[in-house]
Amino acid sequence: MAQLDVSQIKALTFDVFGTVVDWRGSIIRQGEQFGAERGLKVDWAAFADAWRGAYRPSMDRVRRGELPWTNLDTLHRMVLDELLVKFGISGLSEADIDHLNRVWHRLDPWPDAVEGLTRLRRRFVLATLSNGNVALLTNMAKYGGLPWDCILSAELARHYKPDPQTYQTAADLLGLQPAQVMMVAAHKDDLRAAQRVGFKAAFVTRPYERGPNHTPDLTPDPAFEVHASDFNDLAGKLGV
Amino acid sequence: MAQLDVSQIKALTFDVFGTVVDWRGSIIRQGEQFGAERGLKVDWAAFADAWRGAYRPSMDRVRRGELPWTNLDTLHRMVLDELLVKFGISGLSEADIDHLNRVWHRLDPWPDAVEGLTRLRRRFVLATLSNGNVALLTNMAKYGGLPWDCILSAELARHYKPDPQTYQTAADLLGLQPAQVMMVAAHKDDLRAAQRVGFKAAFVTRPYERGPNHTPDLTPDPAFEVHASDFNDLAGKLGV
Repeated sequence: MAQLDVSQIKALTFDVFGTVVDWRGSIIRQGEQFGAERGLKVDWAAFADAWRGAYRPSMDRVRRGELPWTNLDTLHRMVLDELLVKFGISGLSEADIDHLNRVWHRLDPWPDAVEGLTRLRRRFVLATLSNGNVALLTNMAKYGGLPWDCILSAELARHYKPDPQTYQTAADLLGLQPAQVMMVAAHKDDLRAAQRVGFKAAFVTRPYERGPNHTPDLTPDPAFEVHASDFNDLAGKLGV
Repeated sequence: MAQLDVSQIKALTFDVFGTVVDWRGSIIRQGEQFGAERGLKVDWAAFADAWRGAYRPSMDRVRRGELPWTNLDTLHRMVLDELLVKFGISGLSEADIDHLNRVWHRLDPWPDAVEGLTRLRRRFVLATLSNGNVALLTNMAKYGGLPWDCILSAELARHYKPDPQTYQTAADLLGLQPAQVMMVAAHKDDLRAAQRVGFKAAFVTRPYERGPNHTPDLTPDPAFEVHASDFNDLAGKLGV
């Protein structure tokens, strides 16, 4: 495993969807309640997977310049409008559709997240570093009680991860050198992109992010400085 | 007084220097300790006033385009380097000068601030909206226990208050219409600029911001929606 001098780390930046919050379980739970109240018959697991599946391609259109800068709430809505047709959901009011789109503002933290972050916050500056927009992340933190010191987002760089500008902008806004910042994520591509800018990397495994029938890559990678099974394990490994 | 429907307000944005924290008292206290440890004879009240006095002119150079975008830590340092000469302070290490410059990251909240913000946070999204840079505001919040939901700054708009872009960018990042946001400040020019963009305005009086020998303008202005004597009074007037 890569060497780490923890005393050099001043801030931790966190991927959010999948790393801090359970997007899939939350969308299924809230979708089922939303659907029951409106008499809809929808496979919400398939719906959640389709919504998330369109996430990367829609951001890539922005990253390639095919779309001007468009924040994630708007990309989510563009995809949602297509999914409503595809899943045969009709008759919703604009207020209902907006409420459904904002399910991404109301995602539940993984069970260890608030406790682990509360421990980590004693020693480090904790910031989001998500492709979610600032309003989404701010509302989610209030909903779930996530104790961030600072909301940072791809929106502030107008570049989606894994573009290097996203990470560099975060370090600049924190007033830190990249080597003083550790990226925390359940996704190896995010960590590798952060490391290319000079960040340190902590890989946290989230085996159930994509549901019980999906087998994610949980193997350690010796290039990352820390491997942890959850945020409490991460706190312990960072000496908090 | 201007009419207000509190139910329309979703977020409060706060001026910070003077409104939330006592910059002058904090710089005097920390300056005296810093000077005593290093055997310096300095009138720290005069030093604090001179530092703050150069604040608006240095930002105005950025606002007029005479300087490219320069964050407040850097502007503070440019002024500090001149003040060290003017006040006859020599022999400081670079680490000492940097520590002194970062006194702006370690300003003490007014006595009512944390309690009032904690109350207000139950109902509203609370964000900074300061000319201080993100790192400064983040470190200050950690130092003083200020319970922000989100750190917003002129740095994110690359426009200093009272430029309209600063306020508009904040509303955009919060995902809100300007009329859903209330600016809270002890300075009428800040509130008037926010109102020109469509924000609501709460004037909080801070009679001691500039010390005991300064008589600030504390008169109510009927154009503002709320007048409050401190943040607990503000919470009460907003029904929290």
